[in-house]
Amino acid sequence: MATKITSISFERGIPCAEAFPVSQIQQCAAAILAADAATVLQYGKSMGYMPLRETIANWHGASPEEVLVGNGSLQIQEFLSLLLLRPGDTVFVEQPTYDRAITIFRRHGANVVGIPLEPDGLDIEFLIAQLRKVRPKFLYLIPDFQNPSGVTTSLSKREEIVRLAEEHDFWIIEDGPYRALRYRGSDVPLMRTLNPDRVLHLSSFAKVLSPGVRIGYLIASERIVEAVARIATDTYVTPGLLAQGIAYEFCRRGWLEPNVERLKGIYWPRLKATVSALRESLPAADWVEPEGGFFVGITLPPPMNVADLQVRAAEVGLSLSDGRGFFPQGGGERFLRLAFTALSEPEICEGISRLARLVSH
Amino acid sequence: MATKITSISFERGIPCAEAFPVSQIQQCAAAILAADAATVLQYGKSMGYMPLRETIANWHGASPEEVLVGNGSLQIQEFLSLLLLRPGDTVFVEQPTYDRAITIFRRHGANVVGIPLEPDGLDIEFLIAQLRKVRPKFLYLIPDFQNPSGVTTSLSKREEIVRLAEEHDFWIIEDGPYRALRYRGSDVPLMRTLNPDRVLHLSSFAKVLSPGVRIGYLIASERIVEAVARIATDTYVTPGLLAQGIAYEFCRRGWLEPNVERLKGIYWPRLKATVSALRESLPAADWVEPEGGFFVGITLPPPMNVADLQVRAAEVGLSLSDGRGFFPQGGGERFLRLAFTALSEPEICEGISRLARLVSH
Repeated sequence: MATKITSISFERGIPCAEAFPVSQIQQCAAAILAADAATVLQYGKSMGYMPLRETIANWHGASPEEVLVGNGSLQIQEFLSLLLLRPGDTVFVEQPTYDRAITIFRRHGANVVGIPLEPDGLDIEFLIAQLRKVRPKFLYLIPDFQNPSGVTTSLSKREEIVRLAEEHDFWIIEDGPYRALRYRGSDVPLMRTLNPDRVLHLSSFAKVLSPGVRIGYLIASERIVEAVARIATDTYVTPGLLAQGIAYEFCRRGWLEPNVERLKGIYWPRLKATVSALRESLPAADWVEPEGGFFVGITLPPPMNVADLQVRAAEVGLSLSDGRGFFPQGGGERFLRLAFTALSEPEICEGISRLARLVSH
Repeated sequence: MATKITSISFERGIPCAEAFPVSQIQQCAAAILAADAATVLQYGKSMGYMPLRETIANWHGASPEEVLVGNGSLQIQEFLSLLLLRPGDTVFVEQPTYDRAITIFRRHGANVVGIPLEPDGLDIEFLIAQLRKVRPKFLYLIPDFQNPSGVTTSLSKREEIVRLAEEHDFWIIEDGPYRALRYRGSDVPLMRTLNPDRVLHLSSFAKVLSPGVRIGYLIASERIVEAVARIATDTYVTPGLLAQGIAYEFCRRGWLEPNVERLKGIYWPRLKATVSALRESLPAADWVEPEGGFFVGITLPPPMNVADLQVRAAEVGLSLSDGRGFFPQGGGERFLRLAFTALSEPEICEGISRLARLVSH
C-alpha cells in the first residue's frame, strides 16, 4: 500500500493563514463603523477614502491629491492601461515578469517586449538597444523582490532607467507590493523618489494586511491621478470604502508597522529554509537569493523542462507553476517560481527535496 | 440681508445616511471574521465568496455556478462589455437610460442606439423597426423602477422583448438594483425567469444594504459566468471578499428582508411627497408615477431647457442633473431626473416648490 503523500504547492504567492491579524481587523471594522459609517457605507469619490489617501501620502511625502486608492493594484494597472495604451503600442517589461501584468497589457493590444533581468535588475545594454528601435509607452517593473525572480534592482540601475525614461520620453510603472517585506539588507530608494513626474508608483495592502480587503493604490502626479479617477468612476463609481476604512483604522492605530515586523518574523525563516534547501539539494540550479518578498525564481539546469516536470511533480504531490507564463517572448522552459510564504519550513524542505529527486532522475 | 438658503440636491441617486444598518453591519463583520477569516481575508476565486453565491442562487432558483459576485454591478457591466462587444458593435438601450451604462458601452466602441421608453416600457414598434436595420449584441434595460425615468416594464412587454431577443439572436442585460424596493403594486416577473439562457441578470447590494461594501452580482448561464470570471481574474484577481463575507452574514442572519422593509418605510413617504408636490406645483410637467426605486423622471413643458434651468436653479440653492446625459442620441433637453431617497419630505417639498417657481418664471 502506498503511503499517503501530503500535497505541497509552490504555485501561489499568497500569505499564510496565520499572517492575518484577525482580531485587530475585527476591532478596526467596529471602530470605523462607529466613527464614520456615513462615509464608508456610502458612495464616494473614486479616488478612495480620504483619510487613507492622506495616510499613504504621508508615507511617501506626497499630497493626498497624488494618491488614488482602488480595488487592488492590478485593477489600477488596468486603468493605467486604458489611459496610456492604444492597440499597437509597445510596453517594456522585465523578463521574466508578473504574468497577470502581461495579460492586462496584451488585452489592450500592446506589443509586450521583455528586457532580460540580471541579478541586479534589467540588462541596461539590452534596454538601450531596444530603445533605439521603439519608444515604449511605459516600462513596467517590480524593483523590490521581483515577482517571479526575487531580484532587487540596484540603485545605479534605478537611476539609469529613470534617466533613460526621461531621455526617451516613456513612463515607468513601478510596482512595489513586496517592498515593506525586506528581511535583510537596506532599502533602495523608490524609483518614484528619483523622478516623481516620470514614475507611476503602485502598491497594495495585499501582502502587508490582507488580499481580501482588496486595496491597491497609485501614487502619481495630480494630473495622472485625476485621469485615472475619471476612468475609475466610469468603471465602478466608488471603490470598496468599507474595506478602505478598516485599513485606514488599522494604520491610524499604529498597527501596520508591527504587523509587517510580525510577518517578517514568519516569512524570513521560510525564505532561509528555501534557500538552504536549494543550496543543499539543487546546486546545479541557478537563482538569486532574494532580500525579501514572496518568491525565489530558479532556473533548472539543462535539459530540464518545467512542463514535463509539472506532470511528474503532480505524481509525487508537488504543484509547480509553469515558468513560461512569466516570459512574454518565449523562453522560461527551465524557469520555476517558488512561492514560499504559505508553506511551513518542513513543507519547504520536503518540497524541495521532492523537486531535487525529480530533477536528478 | 439675504436669508440663508439651504441647498437641496435632486442629483445623486444615493441612499440616505439613516438607511445604513450600522450596528448590524458591525456585528456581521465581527462574526464573519470569527467564522471564516482564512477565506475572507485571503485571495480567492474571482466568482466571489461561495456562501454568498449560494445565497443569491437560492433567491433566484439558480445554481451557485450561475452566480458571479463582483465589485459592484457597473464593474460587471464592464466585464460583460469586454466579453461581448467589439468596436463597431451595436447596443440597444432604453432612451432615457442610466448614463454610466452608456459610457461603458461607448468605451468599448459600441454604437449605442436608444429605443424610446413609454410609460409601460420600450416602444416595441420602434424596437422592431430598429431590429430590421441592425442586430444588436445586446439590449440593456432596467425593467423595474428604471433609472432615470422610474418606469416599470409591463409583463407583456417583457415577454415580447424576450421573444424578439430569441428571434433576432441578441442578449438581454437586465439590470435590477432597485427591484426589491417596490413600495406599491406587485412584482412583475424578472425577464431572466422568462428565458434564463437569453437574459443576463445584474443586481447589487448598493440600494438594499450599502454602496460602500461595493457588491454587485451577475446571474447567467454557467458558460457566461465562467467567461466573465476569467475576465475578472485577469482584472482584479479576487473581488473584495471581506465585504462579501459581511453581506453574506447579514443575509444568513435573516436581516436583509427586514432591512428592505425598513428602507421602504423611509423611501415610500419620500416618493409620495415628490409625486404630490409635482402634481400640485408642476401640473404642466409630464411623468410616470413610479411604484418603487429611487427616481422620478419628469419632462418639463416647452420651451423649458434644463441646461438653462440648472444655472438659475443653482442661484436658488437647487442642484439638478442635466437630463441630456441619459439620452444616447440627443434629446433630453427638457428631462429632469429627481432623486428623492436622500432628501427629507420637507426638503422635497421645498425643492419642488423652488423648481416650480423657476419653471413658471
